Amino acid sequence: MPASLTRAALETLDHADELAPFRDEFDLPADVIYLDGNSLGPLPKATPGRVAEVVAREWGQSLIRGWNTHGWMRLPLRIGEKLGRIIGAEPGSTLVADSTSVNLFKLLAAALEARPTRRMILTETGNFPTDLYMAQGLAALLRRGHEVRAVADPVAALNQDVAILMLTHVNYRSGAMHDMASVTRAAHAVGALTLWDLSHSAGAVPLRVAEDGADFAVGCGYKYLNGGPGAPAFLSVAPRLHADLRLPLTGWLGHAEPFAFAPDYRPAEGIGRATVGTPPVLSLAALEVGVDQMLRVPMDALRAKSQRLIDLFIALIEQECAEYEFRLLTPRDAAIRGSQVAFGHADGHAIMQALIARGVIGDFRSPDVMRFGLAPLYVRHTDVWDAVSVLCEVMRTGAWREASVAERRAVT
Amino acid sequence: MPASLTRAALETLDHADELAPFRDEFDLPADVIYLDGNSLGPLPKATPGRVAEVVAREWGQSLIRGWNTHGWMRLPLRIGEKLGRIIGAEPGSTLVADSTSVNLFKLLAAALEARPTRRMILTETGNFPTDLYMAQGLAALLRRGHEVRAVADPVAALNQDVAILMLTHVNYRSGAMHDMASVTRAAHAVGALTLWDLSHSAGAVPLRVAEDGADFAVGCGYKYLNGGPGAPAFLSVAPRLHADLRLPLTGWLGHAEPFAFAPDYRPAEGIGRATVGTPPVLSLAALEVGVDQMLRVPMDALRAKSQRLIDLFIALIEQECAEYEFRLLTPRDAAIRGSQVAFGHADGHAIMQALIARGVIGDFRSPDVMRFGLAPLYVRHTDVWDAVSVLCEVMRTGAWREASVAERRAVT
Repeated sequence: MPASLTRAALETLDHADELAPFRDEFDLPADVIYLDGNSLGPLPKATPGRVAEVVAREWGQSLIRGWNTHGWMRLPLRIGEKLGRIIGAEPGSTLVADSTSVNLFKLLAAALEARPTRRMILTETGNFPTDLYMAQGLAALLRRGHEVRAVADPVAALNQDVAILMLTHVNYRSGAMHDMASVTRAAHAVGALTLWDLSHSAGAVPLRVAEDGADFAVGCGYKYLNGGPGAPAFLSVAPRLHADLRLPLTGWLGHAEPFAFAPDYRPAEGIGRATVGTPPVLSLAALEVGVDQMLRVPMDALRAKSQRLIDLFIALIEQECAEYEFRLLTPRDAAIRGSQVAFGHADGHAIMQALIARGVIGDFRSPDVMRFGLAPLYVRHTDVWDAVSVLCEVMRTGAWREASVAERRAVT
Repeated sequence: MPASLTRAALETLDHADELAPFRDEFDLPADVIYLDGNSLGPLPKATPGRVAEVVAREWGQSLIRGWNTHGWMRLPLRIGEKLGRIIGAEPGSTLVADSTSVNLFKLLAAALEARPTRRMILTETGNFPTDLYMAQGLAALLRRGHEVRAVADPVAALNQDVAILMLTHVNYRSGAMHDMASVTRAAHAVGALTLWDLSHSAGAVPLRVAEDGADFAVGCGYKYLNGGPGAPAFLSVAPRLHADLRLPLTGWLGHAEPFAFAPDYRPAEGIGRATVGTPPVLSLAALEVGVDQMLRVPMDALRAKSQRLIDLFIALIEQECAEYEFRLLTPRDAAIRGSQVAFGHADGHAIMQALIARGVIGDFRSPDVMRFGLAPLYVRHTDVWDAVSVLCEVMRTGAWREASVAERRAVT
């Protein structure tokens, strides 16, 4: 970062930014710098109209006929197919369904079925809690001596008792990113399967799950895919595993012939068998808008801008706020991080409250982590300048202490 | 039914109907008589506005802050509490989450945990397929010798090896309704738990799950509750079972402190532990409109009209269409049926297609069942008259044969 860094220079970058037109596709509040798209993406301008159309015209006028005439029944596969392109999956291997948590359960159970003599679900210390919890719940349910083991270096802990290595590709707190290809190779070398949680990756970084050899993947629709609060999640299974894929949640819409109403379950061919209940049409309509938008994004440009924004954020903090002891938690190496940047600070929670009160919206993760999502579709270089300026001001004036005091009062 | 039955007499009934104002609360297509609300309820007029508000104002303007400022995080419990009143559950025992299928899995697994020495999941021949399939999937996953047994008379088959008796309260095909209180007593007498699927009951018939002693219940939001296509489902657990309730899908939002991001799962107190992933806010907003409406409905009047409509439908068929051999599949006794009526007919599929082409929308269920949902909030007495008139006309003219031919052509 040049010492001569100025806001004017960043304005020039914004003007030249080939992604700049995407920002106009979002309905962003005027008084906000939004750096929390890694938690909930903002509203695409096209979404209200599409949702209104599905509600009033499709549901209201077609009623039950909508399942056929508007292709509602195909939505999980149709949107899944598009999502598969975003994550670099083979055609026919990705489905939108349920929540990330439920999809983790399905695929973890399938992995244990596929590796019946192995007893370990291996993961990483600091993985997202629901990944750990769903694995723990499955192991407790099965009562067959499975261990959920979380270690600092999971690749080093791989052995022939590992049924599945479950990792979040981009860490939700630090933003550190695994090398999917080499980690997957290491897992396969001991005969283990891999399950990648792409919640903080899909729409944030280029992905090639097929090329990298991933067996299973899941991810979230409401972060960088801008699908709306609680949007449906996705799952993906490498085609080589489809034929023997035994899933535990055998719902009627995963049946080979759901409308035969047969008494016994028989799984559909392919990834369709991972459907469980009736697709949530309204939520799917919103998600599809975000996914369609993402398909138009040049991913190389997205990745380059994402890393430029993070470099800029770090440089400005270190240049302007050095005395306040923000501890960088995200790798400096752009090759091994996602699209977010995190700083540790003992007063991080109060500082984040002060930022949010001033319209700079990031978030806080226990115990002391301030997270800033730098989603290149709508975050500008000048937004980073302005956000860091507000942060420095909050520190310089001690304004964060007021947030801290107000909060202590609220608690006591 | 009097022999002097006339359309004018039914108009008089419609005018005097205390539920008539509810029909005006729905956006129903002008050219349709909608008798399929038991599959997908119609659109309440209040829903588009509420959904638009949640999308544009809550999500669009509040962004991540919506989880607190708009109470999104509380939606599953808030709507669950309202739904609990509709099904007669104790306060604090009902939650909106996931799909009916996923909720079946959760509660079946909890039941087997609570009855660890018993091996049977007992149910009824002809139960809805997903209920059977989810039980089969769970038994296959556990590999502990559980049997899913479907019999014609499940009460007679109760014994000390039955962990759980799983029944759909109102049969999806015939509309026959179990006596929840006596069946539950019989199950409890042998130490079995009960799980009631209320998908065709909630919003259709008065329910008292607490008074009737039910242990577990699940149900659907998109039928008589008018929550929209693929609306979230609900589950309910008797409070006496909460303390020891071990659920298999241990997602982060069912954790006692989700935002502590602790590495180990610890269930929330009460029914909140049945939450798994992030609540689907847009779909929940639509569901809440339907649930709020249902809370205003006088259930005795709803029940009385529902039975009057069914009696009328049967009488008119038998009076006007006797020669076409429609076989009544629904009990004549109003005390043991829900809010739908079904007829068997060898040409039922083609006949139903002809009806739908003429704006009378019911549905068909394999192998030969024509179903008509008579939802008292918007189906009028004259609608029944008009629907049966169209049906008789279709039979008299042989018009259904054209639908049959067209269909055979489409298939070949």
